Amino acid sequence: MHTTPVLIAGAWRQAAESGRFQPTNPSTAAAISRTYPVSDWRDCEAVLEASAHAAVALRSYPAESRARFLELFADAIEASTDALCALAHEETGLPVQPRLRNVELPRTTGQLRTAAKAARDSSWAQAIIDTAANIRSMRGPIGPVAIFGPNNFPLAFNGVAGGDFAAAIAAGNPVIAKAHTAHPGTCHKLASLACQALDRAGLPAAMVQMLFAISREDGYRMVSDQRLGAVAFTGSRRAGLALKQIADKVGTPFYAELSSINPVVILPGALRERGPELAEEFAGSCLMGSGQFCTNPGLIIVPASGDGERFMAHCGELFDHAKPGTLLSLGTEQSLKQAIALLREAGATLVSNASDTIEPKPDKSRFCLPNTLLCVSGQRFLQDSVVFQTEVFGNAALMVVSENHEQTATILRTLEGNLTGSIYSSTTGVDDEAYDGLAPILRERVGRLLNDKMPTGVAVSPAMNHGGPFPASGHPGFTAVGVPTSLIRFSKLDCYDNVRHYRLPPLLQDENPLKTWRSVNGNWTRDPIN
Amino acid sequence: MHTTPVLIAGAWRQAAESGRFQPTNPSTAAAISRTYPVSDWRDCEAVLEASAHAAVALRSYPAESRARFLELFADAIEASTDALCALAHEETGLPVQPRLRNVELPRTTGQLRTAAKAARDSSWAQAIIDTAANIRSMRGPIGPVAIFGPNNFPLAFNGVAGGDFAAAIAAGNPVIAKAHTAHPGTCHKLASLACQALDRAGLPAAMVQMLFAISREDGYRMVSDQRLGAVAFTGSRRAGLALKQIADKVGTPFYAELSSINPVVILPGALRERGPELAEEFAGSCLMGSGQFCTNPGLIIVPASGDGERFMAHCGELFDHAKPGTLLSLGTEQSLKQAIALLREAGATLVSNASDTIEPKPDKSRFCLPNTLLCVSGQRFLQDSVVFQTEVFGNAALMVVSENHEQTATILRTLEGNLTGSIYSSTTGVDDEAYDGLAPILRERVGRLLNDKMPTGVAVSPAMNHGGPFPASGHPGFTAVGVPTSLIRFSKLDCYDNVRHYRLPPLLQDENPLKTWRSVNGNWTRDPIN
Repeated sequence: MHTTPVLIAGAWRQAAESGRFQPTNPSTAAAISRTYPVSDWRDCEAVLEASAHAAVALRSYPAESRARFLELFADAIEASTDALCALAHEETGLPVQPRLRNVELPRTTGQLRTAAKAARDSSWAQAIIDTAANIRSMRGPIGPVAIFGPNNFPLAFNGVAGGDFAAAIAAGNPVIAKAHTAHPGTCHKLASLACQALDRAGLPAAMVQMLFAISREDGYRMVSDQRLGAVAFTGSRRAGLALKQIADKVGTPFYAELSSINPVVILPGALRERGPELAEEFAGSCLMGSGQFCTNPGLIIVPASGDGERFMAHCGELFDHAKPGTLLSLGTEQSLKQAIALLREAGATLVSNASDTIEPKPDKSRFCLPNTLLCVSGQRFLQDSVVFQTEVFGNAALMVVSENHEQTATILRTLEGNLTGSIYSSTTGVDDEAYDGLAPILRERVGRLLNDKMPTGVAVSPAMNHGGPFPASGHPGFTAVGVPTSLIRFSKLDCYDNVRHYRLPPLLQDENPLKTWRSVNGNWTRDPIN
Repeated sequence: MHTTPVLIAGAWRQAAESGRFQPTNPSTAAAISRTYPVSDWRDCEAVLEASAHAAVALRSYPAESRARFLELFADAIEASTDALCALAHEETGLPVQPRLRNVELPRTTGQLRTAAKAARDSSWAQAIIDTAANIRSMRGPIGPVAIFGPNNFPLAFNGVAGGDFAAAIAAGNPVIAKAHTAHPGTCHKLASLACQALDRAGLPAAMVQMLFAISREDGYRMVSDQRLGAVAFTGSRRAGLALKQIADKVGTPFYAELSSINPVVILPGALRERGPELAEEFAGSCLMGSGQFCTNPGLIIVPASGDGERFMAHCGELFDHAKPGTLLSLGTEQSLKQAIALLREAGATLVSNASDTIEPKPDKSRFCLPNTLLCVSGQRFLQDSVVFQTEVFGNAALMVVSENHEQTATILRTLEGNLTGSIYSSTTGVDDEAYDGLAPILRERVGRLLNDKMPTGVAVSPAMNHGGPFPASGHPGFTAVGVPTSLIRFSKLDCYDNVRHYRLPPLLQDENPLKTWRSVNGNWTRDPIN
């Protein structure tokens, strides 16, 4: 029996397989009747070799052709909305509406089109021209990019269609996508659309390749391969750190999103002023998408006060009254259960789900757990701050009750790197002194600092930072979301010293026909050089 | 007996020492009568703790104060030119004139002043403002930077005064400098001047700290410390890779300059056109500073032809006629001798120094070896390309005789990442086809691509790239030379999402009083936001 073919060097072909797998429908916990191959090293070798050739070939294609491909791909995704949403829903349990159809799919096509615009305009490449020394530099392609996408965004972060994909392609690199084994059908459909769009855009066929699954050992071997220019990984901390160590050893940039608990600090004045409103905001943000977001608020710090107690009780009620969403996989359910158990063993107590219905599950026919709000005192948190920073991926959060601002500052100082950190304060200014003491500490530990706002909702803005100090990501200087900044990850700094003018990339020649923003002798300009 | 004190938290104090060392004068091979301490972990702990506090404190100082410090420091270095050059000459053997006084010292003060200008203007921080979403980002300080400087630039790359230092400070970070044990007196003098300038500029005293030496184990422990924001290392590949592995594990950006052989390709038309001129250029670049430059041309590829043979013979003569310079240390002499022996064992033969005078040395009273030009056939090179890429740090180079452009292409494909790569071609265009085939291969492997120019002479230009694919450096997206781009290494991406206007850093507020270049809604502008 044949399995679904893999995409290598522009052709769909039977995998050189070492095994097979079937995905599961999270809404029914039943297997889906499609079979996918686990590729062995022969397939890995083939995609690496083809991508290395494509990388060199790509250097002679104009940016316009990449832009055209990204737009054709976006159009094709839109035209397949029904099929893609049905597949993604079947494989992830995420609701078709509004989540997949109205939010994630438009975000995916929007990212592809914004990346197309960035590629066409080329301002992202930050050309720097020193006319006196005749030294010119720009960001050039880094080489083939291997992308390992996450389970929680089957479209918008998919290895073969999502933000990393769009950025790597726009920056001029071939992509080797590893499909996520939880949603291989969605990946297959997206890769088919990409393949057709590539053909229409006239780009090298090996610019987009995809394998469904590979063994852990082959994953390590691939990441250590010198033909790769970079790796993008979004997923579990354990798997990510193992791959990162290998990439680091061979000096290959490894852009990872590993884990984040996204601390939220509620200051006393804000709580007094608008406690019930904040409870709704927090519960909504925390339970949205069953809490399966990288920027889910997993740690919320509230004052030990009557206001704090009322806030906590209110949040508990909201958690209890909301219907638990479906989780992405049995693995997600199990990890969540384990993480909650770990926090409880360390001393956290249940605020919501007080009757402790984790066993039995609320609904046996699907992957899910009760919404779970836990709480712990600031003092206890500080005694075991590493354990209490365990990422609880799913519809759960930990509330820390802090004695005073000094304790809150101490708590913030113990935090690992995070993607985001939020501080809510009173509109009257009564919290401003506390804010001034806490914000600089939080600033050091997060990529994105928010005021009066929950961290979910990662706008695709050029000013966005979806990254942060380790272990939130692998390097605090890069963002995975926000075009054009996200493209920088997949570039190297290419300097041309005394290179003859006719041999320079068009972007560095005097004429500047596309009116690209360039830094010429220290000033940003779209003008040609006279 | 007391040793020279170390600089911790603004005070010169006796080290908590685990040992002592004396530097050596390379021009006489005699010990210098000054004693310096090897600090133990207590000193490391003290500098780490003080720098962590300074990092937070620094966030509330205006960029102007950092600019002022850098300028005062540059002034102080200039005022101490005689003393600094005398010390540096004594400890490194580099000539006072022109090298130290006329080249390296002015470069050092120039770098400090350019960094000051960048700090003051703040355009380097690449503020990105999305007014519609009210998301604003910029490059903020990354945290305390530990700098391990190299032996070959006692001033311009010194950990307490050089390019990394200037960039780290300008970006708003405290520096922990590890002096180089080959020139501790120079480091001591520079740190004293820095300390006085800090005091006059009114900055936190722990912004600049220095230890003379630490054990290897304490070096590893320091690099793994979470209080560090980044590490900058320039030195041997072995030591650098060991430290990099530790930094990688804890997710601390490690900016390294590890090794580079800087391939130079001479195409047939160029050789025919101006062979003797190119021989002079190559020998001059290769022997300058006894070849002890990161961008020293260590691998030169020439055609197998009569022109090629004449070129080789000419270069050999130039090597033989030039007086061998003094090497930086006994270690440098020994490494050079070993590397030459390694290449000869692998099959390279002597072009210069044909009578093989490596033993005995040309001059017993100082550290030196004969100028050494080796050659090997392209075929032999390809059989052992890893060994033939051994960095031969010093007054030596390997000439590869290539059969044809195809073999040259194959040779270039085997190359590791390098800082630079040069191609010389005819001015008539006869080499253009060969260039077009070779340049894209070389482009992928180097940070800076040159035409008709030797790689030594690293201009401090905003368009410079002194970096390259691994193992030339740790990440191909960053440069160690060229303000303001070199500052980016020591920054993290700080995003402000919905942060109240009065709480934003001045650089992100609407007013833009310093007319800093910012990207506002996709356009670079110095205007305020209305």
